[in-house]
Amino acid sequence: MNRAITASDGKAPRTERGRRTLRGILDAAAIEFGERGFHDASISGITRRAGVALGSFYTYFDSKDAVFRALVRDMSDQVRDHVAPAVRAAPDGIAAERAGLEQFIGFVRQHKEIYRIIDESEFVDPDSFRLHYATTAERITRRLAAAAAQGDLRADVSEVHAWAVMGMNVFLGLRYGVWDDDRGVEDVADTVAEMLRSGLGR
Amino acid sequence: MNRAITASDGKAPRTERGRRTLRGILDAAAIEFGERGFHDASISGITRRAGVALGSFYTYFDSKDAVFRALVRDMSDQVRDHVAPAVRAAPDGIAAERAGLEQFIGFVRQHKEIYRIIDESEFVDPDSFRLHYATTAERITRRLAAAAAQGDLRADVSEVHAWAVMGMNVFLGLRYGVWDDDRGVEDVADTVAEMLRSGLGR
Repeated sequence: MNRAITASDGKAPRTERGRRTLRGILDAAAIEFGERGFHDASISGITRRAGVALGSFYTYFDSKDAVFRALVRDMSDQVRDHVAPAVRAAPDGIAAERAGLEQFIGFVRQHKEIYRIIDESEFVDPDSFRLHYATTAERITRRLAAAAAQGDLRADVSEVHAWAVMGMNVFLGLRYGVWDDDRGVEDVADTVAEMLRSGLGR
Repeated sequence: MNRAITASDGKAPRTERGRRTLRGILDAAAIEFGERGFHDASISGITRRAGVALGSFYTYFDSKDAVFRALVRDMSDQVRDHVAPAVRAAPDGIAAERAGLEQFIGFVRQHKEIYRIIDESEFVDPDSFRLHYATTAERITRRLAAAAAQGDLRADVSEVHAWAVMGMNVFLGLRYGVWDDDRGVEDVADTVAEMLRSGLGR
């Protein structure tokens, strides 16, 4: 991963131990915000779950708002990093989208709190909400365009297709990742890949 | 429309005048909740916008929670009713999905508050949130199955496809309806219809 874990401005950790502490705080924040929602969540709830002193929290973050903002960015980056290797390893453009969806639903099943946190950012921190989806859509647009350039996909793929693909993935993750995981991820991914390859026409 | 407008239990209006008052309260509630969010919205803000006395509010609703719940149901029904005629009039299954998306984005441009309200229901009233999407997905599943039975669509269309279509529509409505309406609705709908017809494969 080519990124620093997010902390408040000027508070980035400088040591490996510091990075581990920050990682622990963000993981604890995901549970705290995911279980309690933004308004009921507390900094002391986060530090208790992380097993760190209150001072350690303020070493990295200025406020509850700041750790929430960092968490949205962190979850967005985590999804990207979790999905990327399978997408890169896929043999063609449709297989890449199939792999992306499969990895995404798998990630969601292990991190069901991600929906509540990203969705609540629409109200708590609208800039983070918008940045998450705008960034994700740009990434998908570039991926589709690269696959089109290689001859895998139709030449006119665009931002509209990217938003369509992102919307599918988000709602399939909600239905088959968060709500109910009795349907196989591979089955869902195969169905969508076939739809992306050939459409729903007869 | 074959439905009664929603009020609290036992509080349904019995006269045409009552139905108009209730309609005015729900329209005012959409603006109040859409602009201020659930927590900052108030019953007095709703009655002021609707131009009705506080007593009229309590004729139809028990509480702020009750009018919010009714509003989510009402917006869900409004979308359905707005989209239905064009979907029914479409000559085939792909054209029906195209018409549904076109009508939906058009509706969103006129009612941008719908996203904030439905999205906030995930936190304020999770049962309403779930009911809205489960009901919408069931409707799309039936529509796709009927089109498949007529030979318009592939025979194996399923709930997975319905959730994919719903997710596309929701995110395209967010991008091209709420965020920015400089791209033509027909252009977006044509692009998605072509993708549904033939896929993204070369």
